[in-house]
Amino acid sequence: MTDAAEKVRLSLEEVRALAEAVLSRHGLSERHVKAVAETMVAGERDECASHGIYRLLVCAHTIKAGKVALDAEPVVHDIAPALVRVDAKGGYAQLPFQMGKPVLEEKARNCGIAAIGINNCVHFAALWPEVEALARDGFVAFAFTPSHAWVAPAGGTRPVFGTNPLAFGWPRPGPHPYVFDFATSAVARGEIELHRRAGKPIPLGWGIDAEGNPTTDAAAALEGAMLTFGGHKGSALATMIELIAGPLIGDMTSAESIAYDDNAKASPFGGELIIAIDPARFLGDKAAEHLARAEAVFENIVSQGARLPSQRRYEARERTRVHGVEVPAKLLADIKALLD
Amino acid sequence: MTDAAEKVRLSLEEVRALAEAVLSRHGLSERHVKAVAETMVAGERDECASHGIYRLLVCAHTIKAGKVALDAEPVVHDIAPALVRVDAKGGYAQLPFQMGKPVLEEKARNCGIAAIGINNCVHFAALWPEVEALARDGFVAFAFTPSHAWVAPAGGTRPVFGTNPLAFGWPRPGPHPYVFDFATSAVARGEIELHRRAGKPIPLGWGIDAEGNPTTDAAAALEGAMLTFGGHKGSALATMIELIAGPLIGDMTSAESIAYDDNAKASPFGGELIIAIDPARFLGDKAAEHLARAEAVFENIVSQGARLPSQRRYEARERTRVHGVEVPAKLLADIKALLD
Repeated sequence: MTDAAEKVRLSLEEVRALAEAVLSRHGLSERHVKAVAETMVAGERDECASHGIYRLLVCAHTIKAGKVALDAEPVVHDIAPALVRVDAKGGYAQLPFQMGKPVLEEKARNCGIAAIGINNCVHFAALWPEVEALARDGFVAFAFTPSHAWVAPAGGTRPVFGTNPLAFGWPRPGPHPYVFDFATSAVARGEIELHRRAGKPIPLGWGIDAEGNPTTDAAAALEGAMLTFGGHKGSALATMIELIAGPLIGDMTSAESIAYDDNAKASPFGGELIIAIDPARFLGDKAAEHLARAEAVFENIVSQGARLPSQRRYEARERTRVHGVEVPAKLLADIKALLD
Repeated sequence: MTDAAEKVRLSLEEVRALAEAVLSRHGLSERHVKAVAETMVAGERDECASHGIYRLLVCAHTIKAGKVALDAEPVVHDIAPALVRVDAKGGYAQLPFQMGKPVLEEKARNCGIAAIGINNCVHFAALWPEVEALARDGFVAFAFTPSHAWVAPAGGTRPVFGTNPLAFGWPRPGPHPYVFDFATSAVARGEIELHRRAGKPIPLGWGIDAEGNPTTDAAAALEGAMLTFGGHKGSALATMIELIAGPLIGDMTSAESIAYDDNAKASPFGGELIIAIDPARFLGDKAAEHLARAEAVFENIVSQGARLPSQRRYEARERTRVHGVEVPAKLLADIKALLD
């Protein structure tokens, strides 16, 4: 038996090799293995443990449930001067994003603003890797995706929305773009799950029970509904994301995704919308001057001791590049068991 | 003296005539008078009193402070296949929006997605009239604007952001689009002002004093800083709006706007970003089918007794169309005094 607190140090290369081995062992095609594993390496590298190799357990479950097309070959459709769609054909979202990204960027450079809809994909990852990649290429980027209907609207009692995250990236002259990525639910579903496992109460405001009453019982909230952050404003944002990354791109809502799941408890299925703007097209030869004025906004925030949302991840990245990552021994054992 | 509770009933035509008379009396050119007055009629019509003819007092003050170009002739610049800029030349934002809107819509129809940056404008109005107009024309629309730096970042002590509103519109088959419009501050600044006047404490979470301590003293919060809604998530959204409706379009941040104001307490000066997406370009001949699926999202919300954000305004609109509006007698007297 392993001690619950015991940790094992792995280099990022070892993380990558482990992720690729597990995904290959489960039948995922080579191109998907590379793309999906890289997302998990990024999670570990930035010490976002919930989006690191822990997700191998999630992927293995979703694959065993038959909810992923393992060798899907995404197809890129150029549908308008500033719109591209990628049909993921039922596979994971990472490879279709990689294939659509150069088309999106070319369209944003040509038109000033452009959007990509990724359709028919399985989505388990954070959105920050995508907006960060676009911001590193000089674009202002927004990403949105529904999930499974777990979250009630403000004033309601039943789930309608997914955790419906929103991510944003802004190019900066320094080494790292400004990036945020947050769920429109009050907390991640996994956070409530952790409280349930630990037998701990949840704060009021995270969820309601099946009768719609506020609850501090994690299990009751998981059976009932989660709540959005920020009351009616968060609820409005969740609605917006449901619409623009669902019907607007011809893909499932969170309610349709969880119905399709049919209690398999697999990762959400549906679409993702990403918008990119080329500041150079708005600003012409004054782009550098105005992007420098944006730096004053960041300076005004950090000079008073407040933090930028991406700061912790970038600090972690410096550490793990040199020292690797620490993974719970129990988690590592569970993952290695997937190789048997 | 008028009773504080006394109300006077006006038809919407009378509201329009009053607004036009006051704005003309203050030297605003004919085209601006029409455009600005219509915003106030829309506010009264929807029983949004804070964006109705009360704003005539705000406009009169801003005009007297010399902070508006009264006869500005906005210039439309077609800068990229999917981008348009309108230079407001220091005038109010309504007329430049009206002039840019057909260009924005044509670009969205051609390219699938398009954006407009309105620059060098004075902004006192809500954003919902603009996204609602675009949604009525069949577009999915987003609008953003900074304001004056009144709001501190999460974890900070000093103002950086404006109340930085965000509005969204979605076309619906019925009579009214889905529309929301909210400040990323915890409440409107006017709400804190009302508490100060009434000598009432404000709830914790609305503001901090000049030393950065949480306060329930409205005057202390007005001297210190307001807070965003939703903690670090609201703060991230406020940052995003600061960037995309400021430096991205080559215009002022909220800190620059309040510095330019130089204690005149005039309306914010700067830019506004609006994005429009044509669902028909994403969905082709399946647009009607997928927009009908969006209706299931709304049905799922209202069928459990939760309300849509625009519902109250649309109900008011039905009432006021027939019965006109009720305006406080004291407010009406103050406005009529502007005609002397």
